[in-house]
Amino acid sequence: MTASITDPHGRLQERNGLDFAVADLGLHEFGRKEIRLAENEMPGLMALRREYAEAKPLHGARIAGSLHMTVQTAVLIETLVSLGAEVRWVSCNIFSTQDHAAAAIVVGPHGTPEEPKGVPVFAWKGETLAEYWWATEQLFNFTDPNGELVGPNMILDDGGDATLLVHKGVEFEKTGVVPTVEDSDLTVSEEYRVILDVLRRSLAENPQKWTTVASDIRGVTEETTTGVHRLYQLAEQGLLLFPAINVNDSVTKSKFDNKYGIRHSLIDGLNRGTDVLIGGKVAVVCGFGDVGKGAAEALSGQGARVIVTEADPICALQALLEGYQVARLEDVIERADIVITTTGNKDIVTVEAMKRMKHQAILGNVGHFDNEIDMAGLARIEGIIRITIKPQVDEWVFPDGHSIIVLSEGRLMNLGNATGHPSFVMSNSFSNQVIAQIELFTKHEEYNCDVYRLPKILDEKVAKIHVQALGGELTTLTKDQAEYIGVDVEGPFKPEHYRY
Amino acid sequence: MTASITDPHGRLQERNGLDFAVADLGLHEFGRKEIRLAENEMPGLMALRREYAEAKPLHGARIAGSLHMTVQTAVLIETLVSLGAEVRWVSCNIFSTQDHAAAAIVVGPHGTPEEPKGVPVFAWKGETLAEYWWATEQLFNFTDPNGELVGPNMILDDGGDATLLVHKGVEFEKTGVVPTVEDSDLTVSEEYRVILDVLRRSLAENPQKWTTVASDIRGVTEETTTGVHRLYQLAEQGLLLFPAINVNDSVTKSKFDNKYGIRHSLIDGLNRGTDVLIGGKVAVVCGFGDVGKGAAEALSGQGARVIVTEADPICALQALLEGYQVARLEDVIERADIVITTTGNKDIVTVEAMKRMKHQAILGNVGHFDNEIDMAGLARIEGIIRITIKPQVDEWVFPDGHSIIVLSEGRLMNLGNATGHPSFVMSNSFSNQVIAQIELFTKHEEYNCDVYRLPKILDEKVAKIHVQALGGELTTLTKDQAEYIGVDVEGPFKPEHYRY
Amino acid sequence: MTASITDPHGRLQERNGLDFAVADLGLHEFGRKEIRLAENEMPGLMALRREYAEAKPLHGARIAGSLHMTVQTAVLIETLVSLGAEVRWVSCNIFSTQDHAAAAIVVGPHGTPEEPKGVPVFAWKGETLAEYWWATEQLFNFTDPNGELVGPNMILDDGGDATLLVHKGVEFEKTGVVPTVEDSDLTVSEEYRVILDVLRRSLAENPQKWTTVASDIRGVTEETTTGVHRLYQLAEQGLLLFPAINVNDSVTKSKFDNKYGIRHSLIDGLNRGTDVLIGGKVAVVCGFGDVGKGAAEALSGQGARVIVTEADPICALQALLEGYQVARLEDVIERADIVITTTGNKDIVTVEAMKRMKHQAILGNVGHFDNEIDMAGLARIEGIIRITIKPQVDEWVFPDGHSIIVLSEGRLMNLGNATGHPSFVMSNSFSNQVIAQIELFTKHEEYNCDVYRLPKILDEKVAKIHVQALGGELTTLTKDQAEYIGVDVEGPFKPEHYRY
Amino acid sequence: MTASITDPHGRLQERNGLDFAVADLGLHEFGRKEIRLAENEMPGLMALRREYAEAKPLHGARIAGSLHMTVQTAVLIETLVSLGAEVRWVSCNIFSTQDHAAAAIVVGPHGTPEEPKGVPVFAWKGETLAEYWWATEQLFNFTDPNGELVGPNMILDDGGDATLLVHKGVEFEKTGVVPTVEDSDLTVSEEYRVILDVLRRSLAENPQKWTTVASDIRGVTEETTTGVHRLYQLAEQGLLLFPAINVNDSVTKSKFDNKYGIRHSLIDGLNRGTDVLIGGKVAVVCGFGDVGKGAAEALSGQGARVIVTEADPICALQALLEGYQVARLEDVIERADIVITTTGNKDIVTVEAMKRMKHQAILGNVGHFDNEIDMAGLARIEGIIRITIKPQVDEWVFPDGHSIIVLSEGRLMNLGNATGHPSFVMSNSFSNQVIAQIELFTKHEEYNCDVYRLPKILDEKVAKIHVQALGGELTTLTKDQAEYIGVDVEGPFKPEHYRY
Repeated sequence: MTASITDPHGRLQERNGLDFAVADLGLHEFGRKEIRLAENEMPGLMALRREYAEAKPLHGARIAGSLHMTVQTAVLIETLVSLGAEVRWVSCNIFSTQDHAAAAIVVGPHGTPEEPKGVPVFAWKGETLAEYWWATEQLFNFTDPNGELVGPNMILDDGGDATLLVHKGVEFEKTGVVPTVEDSDLTVSEEYRVILDVLRRSLAENPQKWTTVASDIRGVTEETTTGVHRLYQLAEQGLLLFPAINVNDSVTKSKFDNKYGIRHSLIDGLNRGTDVLIGGKVAVVCGFGDVGKGAAEALSGQGARVIVTEADPICALQALLEGYQVARLEDVIERADIVITTTGNKDIVTVEAMKRMKHQAILGNVGHFDNEIDMAGLARIEGIIRITIKPQVDEWVFPDGHSIIVLSEGRLMNLGNATGHPSFVMSNSFSNQVIAQIELFTKHEEYNCDVYRLPKILDEKVAKIHVQALGGELTTLTKDQAEYIGVDVEGPFKPEHYRY
Repeated sequence: MTASITDPHGRLQERNGLDFAVADLGLHEFGRKEIRLAENEMPGLMALRREYAEAKPLHGARIAGSLHMTVQTAVLIETLVSLGAEVRWVSCNIFSTQDHAAAAIVVGPHGTPEEPKGVPVFAWKGETLAEYWWATEQLFNFTDPNGELVGPNMILDDGGDATLLVHKGVEFEKTGVVPTVEDSDLTVSEEYRVILDVLRRSLAENPQKWTTVASDIRGVTEETTTGVHRLYQLAEQGLLLFPAINVNDSVTKSKFDNKYGIRHSLIDGLNRGTDVLIGGKVAVVCGFGDVGKGAAEALSGQGARVIVTEADPICALQALLEGYQVARLEDVIERADIVITTTGNKDIVTVEAMKRMKHQAILGNVGHFDNEIDMAGLARIEGIIRITIKPQVDEWVFPDGHSIIVLSEGRLMNLGNATGHPSFVMSNSFSNQVIAQIELFTKHEEYNCDVYRLPKILDEKVAKIHVQALGGELTTLTKDQAEYIGVDVEGPFKPEHYRY
Repeated sequence: MTASITDPHGRLQERNGLDFAVADLGLHEFGRKEIRLAENEMPGLMALRREYAEAKPLHGARIAGSLHMTVQTAVLIETLVSLGAEVRWVSCNIFSTQDHAAAAIVVGPHGTPEEPKGVPVFAWKGETLAEYWWATEQLFNFTDPNGELVGPNMILDDGGDATLLVHKGVEFEKTGVVPTVEDSDLTVSEEYRVILDVLRRSLAENPQKWTTVASDIRGVTEETTTGVHRLYQLAEQGLLLFPAINVNDSVTKSKFDNKYGIRHSLIDGLNRGTDVLIGGKVAVVCGFGDVGKGAAEALSGQGARVIVTEADPICALQALLEGYQVARLEDVIERADIVITTTGNKDIVTVEAMKRMKHQAILGNVGHFDNEIDMAGLARIEGIIRITIKPQVDEWVFPDGHSIIVLSEGRLMNLGNATGHPSFVMSNSFSNQVIAQIELFTKHEEYNCDVYRLPKILDEKVAKIHVQALGGELTTLTKDQAEYIGVDVEGPFKPEHYRY
Repeated sequence: MTASITDPHGRLQERNGLDFAVADLGLHEFGRKEIRLAENEMPGLMALRREYAEAKPLHGARIAGSLHMTVQTAVLIETLVSLGAEVRWVSCNIFSTQDHAAAAIVVGPHGTPEEPKGVPVFAWKGETLAEYWWATEQLFNFTDPNGELVGPNMILDDGGDATLLVHKGVEFEKTGVVPTVEDSDLTVSEEYRVILDVLRRSLAENPQKWTTVASDIRGVTEETTTGVHRLYQLAEQGLLLFPAINVNDSVTKSKFDNKYGIRHSLIDGLNRGTDVLIGGKVAVVCGFGDVGKGAAEALSGQGARVIVTEADPICALQALLEGYQVARLEDVIERADIVITTTGNKDIVTVEAMKRMKHQAILGNVGHFDNEIDMAGLARIEGIIRITIKPQVDEWVFPDGHSIIVLSEGRLMNLGNATGHPSFVMSNSFSNQVIAQIELFTKHEEYNCDVYRLPKILDEKVAKIHVQALGGELTTLTKDQAEYIGVDVEGPFKPEHYRY
């Protein structure tokens, strides 16, 4: 048990031999009801449970999961458990936890709040950065059959924070020292300071902790563009400590979760956050990757006039041919009623831009990190006033009296203001996650410290389950037709470079 | 004061000379913040406040308002007050009250919970039918300057319940008796029994109450298709007791509120209620009037495959030419993932149809009354189990084990599961309401006991304000052009029969 | 026979007792094939042929038809004939005749070019204005059983030119003189001068011709917004000489032909005329009535970015809520790649605007008359050069070297550059025409010299046939449901003011 | 000169030292006008002309081009010439030649029909298969400065027919014999028999012709999915005789030409071919690759209800999430009004399916070869009657009297019934072609006999030109932002596996 580790807000508890830190175990019944409904919408995960009911291929796996602790993730977690894994979980975003889902996972389908029988979760909606990284640290404290602390042997990551902590830990343990940062050094983010604090404490306690942890890990499966990007960077520099599977670039992830998930949840977040009519408004979507494409479709599907900003000329040309105006943010910011960032890049909406926005215009981010919008800069404006309308909805009033509405403090508003991507979309992504976990856990010797993608045939398998769930009827190629186009009757049907 | 009237749940209070019955006055601050944001999205109402700041044309009006007690309605109420009116308010739907809006209206912008200075409101989210009609009765208890009970001189109605109570009251007072209904008489709805109870009590107390009330009323302005339909029926039978303005059929109401409001709020209700992916699903929209058109557009804008059911061949042909399948519900019900009724008619989704729906398929209504879906029949199925997932979301489990999800107990799910139409849309409808109130209050002698529509030029005035608010730039006809098409340069621009 | 009337280009012929003036009878076989295909797409007209196969309600009718002489109109003409009418026909636009359709109608299904057995048609693609009005004059030269010249007793009109000729004729015959217009008088259009010439000659030949003709006419059925507008003006001034049915405002006409017809044929005209990619382009649609709505939907359905110009704030607000930018033409003309006028008004695109258009930008009109675009002004620019790329496609090169592409000389480009509205849409409009002709011909005594609309039940009848043809399945109301909403089970289903 | 080669229909001519075979040189003026307009719509090609005006990197190249001889291709050809190349050209489809474009290319901008100064073209609309392959043979007869016959040193191919002829020629020359095929062998297509005939004659004349030709060729650049597929097959088998650049899979080709080109030209072909209303109809799109995606968007943009058939579950899931029904053709064929094949596979619409189609339903192909629809099987049905409505539009009447309309004899109907993809789209594809020709011609030593794609930075360059031409404004990354996402400020912006 981890009782010796300080819980910053007293949430850390131990019951029935299970440690956890969630908002309120009492929410578990509501969570359980929603999990049951979600299971019906996650045919991919349920099919994997059935397929591997006997084999239990994840038996022996200790999975450290860092991914938005929602109802959908609950179905993922229980799928991993049903395949034999031991699991610990945190959210990868301070606002994205659904407290009832977290409670239900801790209690488990057969437990009670008094005698929870589920999975250790360290997550609640509205963490501070310190709490967030404290929770992430808890991920790595498994207990072996002898009651000894032991690390995970698999990571399931979203955005790469769990992976980052291990890599940074190992890096500093090599040099034996965590760098000190001056308070006045503006180039270092607040979040990075928190990470350094966590590791500084860790090194003091156990100067080989992360090195030991890393050596046990068979691999990581990563969910997002942002996390994958970090992995490729590590791999290129030869610094990646274990094999990684890029789940993000499975077609059934990137072209579905990113696009169709956002198409759904962006609207949901806007509506729950603001109740403002989208139709007739000018909405600027920054970025026209898969997320941006989904955002633009959602907004124009509700009758907004969408303007796209893009740096990549190919994506920009796509936006134009879909009928959107393509402009630079600085040229249209004054006309925007709604601005949504989707880029995965930083400093997309600067303080200068925010100052020029319309009165009560809405600003939100569905990229990955909150630095797409310069929230730090906004808070530093002299005389600015922040009025919290309701949780995750802030009105920032500029000294001249006009204001803007910022959602989820610049973090993922589709999770912060709504409930994230719906179950069906996540069933696609998470089926890939489960398949990738099985692959790396069972065949890790076949992989180097590099970044891999899942074979296309598995991607197609995931798709097929979901086509059937939607009532779609697939055509079967004749042998003759398959030969004519040079594929197998069962697939895969396309060359690797095919773009869908 | 009305303290002598029994409050069924002890909500009735009197503070600072103001009587009211709401959920919790403490919510007023949140309500006030949202009202402030909504004002920015309701340019029509704000323009009327500015236009009539001096004239106060509603001075002397005592308006009994029965219309969903939401944040948007709060802006309407305060507009009426700012134009000089005295106002009492109830919600026209048992689930549609936003408790924070009700609280803010009672407290008023300058009051406190202890010393409220606002408007008497009798409404909370989740009323029983008895509470609902009790509240409606409170509408009619104004106090004159001498502290005497006095009725309203104007009604502002949505669905016609306030108008119904007056008309039924007068009818029974004429005969001197309220009809008795056998408990076993299945042709009489539970709601009608409640109304009879209210009137029975009323007659006992004061056998001329409603006749007196009716004689004072200068007119009613009605918001919806359903209410307008009732009014035309009364007028045809010569039973209408005062003039009525049909606000519903102002173009800026019926073609905007009904269509674009639903386009927005249907999605919102589905998402908040169920979090289910809409994309890829089969959605059946029953009815392709303005509400159905908005519903179909919303669902297909989110990637659903929409099937329309229609009785009217013209609307059906429109649906086909917009690319929707047109079918009979009984032929497609088994394929539907989502079924939405929009007809304003009854028995659209029968128990037989519900039994044949998919497991966990979703059923909701955005028409007017809950009898579009045979909720009573559903509850009567032997062995049926109702599991409340969360407020306004029920899973009804059939004896065979499969279940359906019913939203808001078959009542308006865009209000029950979400927050109803957004402010901007309501600004159109409500501007027409205010204009209609002024018209009837100030010129009632010019009107007979009949149903009227607002002149087109006022409709265009409302539109113009909202075009400008969205940044649209209108073209001005030259005198020459106006003459060529036989209109005035300032409008109206179209003949009465024009359909937009 | 009319051989005594001069045919300006020698087209007038007489064969087998039939007079006509078309481009080339040899095209009749191709025309006949296309008529046969069109019949399959015009279920409304074919159903009327079946319904009235015995009754022949138009027996005795002499119908003067002025409506684009296309393949679809051919099916209309042969339907009128099959219902017993005698018919003469002209096109109502100098470019809209399909020569093969005209030929097939003259030859008839059982005739040959040598022995035509069809209907007299006076129309070919590419008439001069003089030819056009000469042809319109031929409409009125029926022959009675004794071989005497006799006028029509019904007019079927599109745009009102046939009706105009009668009314102007009667007007001048009253005063006995046709006004003279100075060549230098710029306020008089070239076309009006031609009309005056025709009538001047007519008065010289027979000073009572039009008065006699008018007295025989039982009524006119009018197809378009523009023509209807003229009729209402005449009726208001008390100058209408016979009853008129406004077919345009049947729902199955105005909301289908105008909107869905243009959605189809606008694209078709642009493509055949220019082959230019529509996707990604900025398209300005002037006017957002039914035609403008169809145009905007067509262009955005092909991926263009649509900007709407509007004078009517209600239509403008609709455009905004559909996601279109609403601007004034002068503010966006320089960005437009395509400009389409749909207003029915004049001087929409001025010479000043044309000068500012992009190099090789495209300009076309789908309103009614060519004066939406100031073609006369364009031609008057000093130094302008007109290069005809192909028939109906002109490049106008400004003195500064940049050019614009004008389609169909500013006349209806969906007819001039393509083949007009497709059969299925026209089946709706033309079914209303046939029903209106039957109504006025058989019940003319019940009508005054005023403008009437068809009863809604007939509108719904037309819709029903077409719903069935598209495979749509209508829902039947129960008696109970019908009563609940106060309609008959068989319809009509909506009040007169309903807008669809 | 090639006068010694037999011209099957006497089209082969020699004038001014230029040999060619086109329909009618007299059409060159119209062709030249349209080329001039197309240049304005092909900014990519015009930018390349400007960029390489001095360098003339194709000086010395002898390019054999086999690609639809349209107006757009004319701008491509003249771009290649302007970069220094010598060119010969044929169409890659028997129906796709625009005769006026062919004429203009032969005459050249500075020639006359009597003294043509352009490029040898062997192509006309409506070739027989024998003519088609005769023409393809002409491609390889360049003349060197000494007047000697010499082969090309580059191939620019679309579908791979020119490449096929060389490869088959070399194959048979190796064995010294062209295989004989029994007339009764139904497994061999008519087209392949024609190819064998051509090569049989060629081997008789010169048994080393193709071996010599092949040895000179530096490479081929291939336009389409189908041709690329053939190339990968050859490369896998080690049979590819020279390097190939896969232009099809440049993003600015496959995701633009395939999708947005079809979105435009499918509608165009349907309209010109049939004039049938698309709105309200049931349209089945076979295949949901890029071409299918464009087709489905076009049809639903016009108001059709689209049903998709797919074998690939990933593409099927995309179709579902875009709101389309996914079904098997055999389950929906009886409801289809329009059936479009887009697969690149064969036997998609069988005779059995065609028999079950609705009366006068429309069948067309925009995949590559005519074997998507079993045209041979259709023609073999006993008692079937083919009525040619107009060129490229046939009504096939089954013995039971019902009929279907087949467009372009099952070949590419967007080219056969319309004019193919519009200039702007082709400017993207063709810019890639030009860049690929330069690459292979100037750097052929760096390439092996394998299939390559163009580097992403060149793809982005092509996109950028076209973004600017559409008025799009690209955002420029700051150095800081570029570093943050690990790219260069100038691009390329995405990893190779990115799918757009």
